[in-house]
Amino acid sequence: MNFIAEINIMPHKELLDPQGRAVANNMKNINLAGISDIRIGKHIVMQLEAGSEAEAKDKVETACRKLLANLIMETFHYEIKAL
Amino acid sequence: MNFIAEINIMPHKELLDPQGRAVANNMKNINLAGISDIRIGKHIVMQLEAGSEAEAKDKVETACRKLLANLIMETFHYEIKAL
Repeated sequence: MNFIAEINIMPHKELLDPQGRAVANNMKNINLAGISDIRIGKHIVMQLEAGSEAEAKDKVETACRKLLANLIMETFHYEIKAL
Repeated sequence: MNFIAEINIMPHKELLDPQGRAVANNMKNINLAGISDIRIGKHIVMQLEAGSEAEAKDKVETACRKLLANLIMETFHYEIKAL
């Protein structure tokens, strides 16, 4: 079976996100007021083959923990859909 | 009213995503088979103030078009929730 996984990897809430802060500070330059907190992370879309949805979840979890996310600084969430 | 916007900015489907390709090639190094296509973009979470949901949408649309996304190479999708 083929699955598609959508993964969001975001900086921990407790950590300063300098990229987001810089973008927020620049919103006034394009005349947008009222935008306060911006946090920027990664969005990853992945196609994978697995025998079951549980196996697909396992694979995505392993990929996130071992390769995609830095768990000291980031958290991840994912959704899996069968194709 | 306060809103929270979740924005995904992804490289166009027609374009090669070298970052995603590199990650996909490395999946075999952590013993994960069957992962084919990976595309990597940005996930942005933004808090904003607006009078109505329509105004909030306007602001997010403007922010994406003028600052966050490069429309030549990227597409964006967003969801807005009232807080």
